[in-house]
Amino acid sequence: MRQRLFTPGPTQIPESVVVAMSGPMIHHRGPEFKALFDEVTAGLKYVFQTQGEVLILTSSGSGGMEAAVVNLLSPGDKVLTIEAGKFGERWGELCRAYGIEPVTLKVNWGEAPDPGEVRKLLQKHADLAAVFFTHSETSTGVASDVREIAGMVREHTNAITVIDGITSVGVLPLYMDEWHIDVCVSGSQKGVMVPPGLAFVALGDRAWPRVEKSKLPRYYFDFLKARKSAGEKSTAWTPAITLLVGLQDSLRMMRKLGLEFYWNKYERLAAATREGMKALGLELFAKVPSNALTSVKVPPGIDGGALTKTLRDKYGVTVAGGQSQLKGKIFRVAHMGYYDHMDMVALMAAVEMTLADLGWKFEMGKGVATVQQKYAGLLAEEAARNAL
Amino acid sequence: MRQRLFTPGPTQIPESVVVAMSGPMIHHRGPEFKALFDEVTAGLKYVFQTQGEVLILTSSGSGGMEAAVVNLLSPGDKVLTIEAGKFGERWGELCRAYGIEPVTLKVNWGEAPDPGEVRKLLQKHADLAAVFFTHSETSTGVASDVREIAGMVREHTNAITVIDGITSVGVLPLYMDEWHIDVCVSGSQKGVMVPPGLAFVALGDRAWPRVEKSKLPRYYFDFLKARKSAGEKSTAWTPAITLLVGLQDSLRMMRKLGLEFYWNKYERLAAATREGMKALGLELFAKVPSNALTSVKVPPGIDGGALTKTLRDKYGVTVAGGQSQLKGKIFRVAHMGYYDHMDMVALMAAVEMTLADLGWKFEMGKGVATVQQKYAGLLAEEAARNAL
Repeated sequence: MRQRLFTPGPTQIPESVVVAMSGPMIHHRGPEFKALFDEVTAGLKYVFQTQGEVLILTSSGSGGMEAAVVNLLSPGDKVLTIEAGKFGERWGELCRAYGIEPVTLKVNWGEAPDPGEVRKLLQKHADLAAVFFTHSETSTGVASDVREIAGMVREHTNAITVIDGITSVGVLPLYMDEWHIDVCVSGSQKGVMVPPGLAFVALGDRAWPRVEKSKLPRYYFDFLKARKSAGEKSTAWTPAITLLVGLQDSLRMMRKLGLEFYWNKYERLAAATREGMKALGLELFAKVPSNALTSVKVPPGIDGGALTKTLRDKYGVTVAGGQSQLKGKIFRVAHMGYYDHMDMVALMAAVEMTLADLGWKFEMGKGVATVQQKYAGLLAEEAARNAL
Repeated sequence: MRQRLFTPGPTQIPESVVVAMSGPMIHHRGPEFKALFDEVTAGLKYVFQTQGEVLILTSSGSGGMEAAVVNLLSPGDKVLTIEAGKFGERWGELCRAYGIEPVTLKVNWGEAPDPGEVRKLLQKHADLAAVFFTHSETSTGVASDVREIAGMVREHTNAITVIDGITSVGVLPLYMDEWHIDVCVSGSQKGVMVPPGLAFVALGDRAWPRVEKSKLPRYYFDFLKARKSAGEKSTAWTPAITLLVGLQDSLRMMRKLGLEFYWNKYERLAAATREGMKALGLELFAKVPSNALTSVKVPPGIDGGALTKTLRDKYGVTVAGGQSQLKGKIFRVAHMGYYDHMDMVALMAAVEMTLADLGWKFEMGKGVATVQQKYAGLLAEEAARNAL
């Protein structure tokens, strides 16, 4: 059976990226690589919307998060971590692994951080060195208001703002420099539509002095080594070369179509999917949904494990279940990546057939029809605009 | 111009590996990945010749080396690093980055560690916690006698033996368990013929108690997390999935042909290349050459930079120059990877034409003829064996 991947990372990869990655291997210290490095770096600055440096690391996104922690902090630093899900908690775990006990704002899973609460904490702890939080929390499907939070950090403290943009860069509107985000981490298998294996860490001007005086131990993830090598148009260590070749192709496409194209596309795919799920009588989990993915509550009386297993084994559709405290309680469907409305139609059809198999009562076809209607409306709108 | 890559990592990739990596993306928590993980892990145990655990990390080989250091040591541990080149020095740099000042045996670049000197140090420092060294030193092209050194470590100390097998696993005879090697690090872009981006760390029974009591900080590279995830047939963090798919293909091929096939092949390619270089009046740099690569002295009166540049830009052959103190003084040619005698013929032809361009006096064709004769001899030998 043909398999369709709808997990919020890895996502589906454009054919042209796969083809690009099938070329002959190149060496990472030669002129061909230097040209690629230049182009990819410029492309990343565009998708991060920054004039700062964007470092490329060979690791998962979590490796990029660790790199941010060990390069920015020193023992005794006071930091705030805002934890609204499994990935927010990772910031706290990382700080503690390096001997820094953070001030933590715990947010109920499914909710977004409350700016009022954040403000109170920032006023109470004006001596913070850094504030770490998540833009698009992939474990819950919630988007936080990074613009507002980063603005408050700048207003009330001298702290630098560090965000996990792993499922938001290239997916949700994000203007790193304009919004006062000092450090932003992302990964290759999300918005930039490349297989997993690369992390990106963008650093603005306010971040570098911290890196220079940071006293936490590191070697492979050292940003000063990475910056020095970037000056020579390469990486400090042998990078995942094929993934960079794929990234060159995908960033060319992203610059050609424009970030707004992707932001709008994901907004529409997410909106259509959310409406479709509601039409089946399902409840959404995220109070403030991210357009990177849709998280849906497993309906009462249905086994969450059976739902994702039936989807995968009977209908060839792989979605993600819930993690940690949400195991068996939600399922999660990606929009970021190489998807269009017809993919969401197929997804919705498989979800409907699975729910019917498992005994959930609803009108078969209603979710699919909702996605179709949303798509038809969009096409009509576009046709009208083009006719003007 | 068609480019041919002869760098000692990344090496040339078999076509079937490229094709395998072009398949649809799979998710790293699903059943398809679990089957792949099982097969790849078994294949890695075979190439490392170990019954121990082989952990898979998404990073370069240097990341794997760092992982070994931070998971095995604790502050105050006494360790020995044997440094016979740039990669040997990396062990020392890594220890110091984490606050551990090693006892160091410096070996002249181009020479192999002297077992007598190592023995003296081991007798003097019987309280060592670990001994770190390099099997195939890629910066000089020298192979060390890991079997003898590891045996002495076991005889004289309670230390664990940790080797950099980055350009030796799958390339040089290496029996990790039998030779008393407790920890061995390798990478994907060398003997196992996959693009760069994965590191492997194999750990024997004596290593795990050290990991469990190690007090150095780590998160992304944590071996206890990696072992726990391996128990669930996955990795702790999203891995470089495409590279693992390629690795599955390449390990299948390696198990089919057998490790001895590769060990013999590289021995023959290296021997033919070394003889060919000498036939041109060139001197070899390594006193005890590794079959992973051949390091050749840039002849007097010739500019080393011009040599590698002419090879690359005029003849499409990319070799590696010297690093650090050897910059401009040697060039290095890979044998490990997807190469055969005809590749070495092409390489030798390009080296001859380049040397002629740069004014070196020698008999054109003599290096190529040497490789041809070696190859013809080998084929005749095989024919005779088969006729018996």
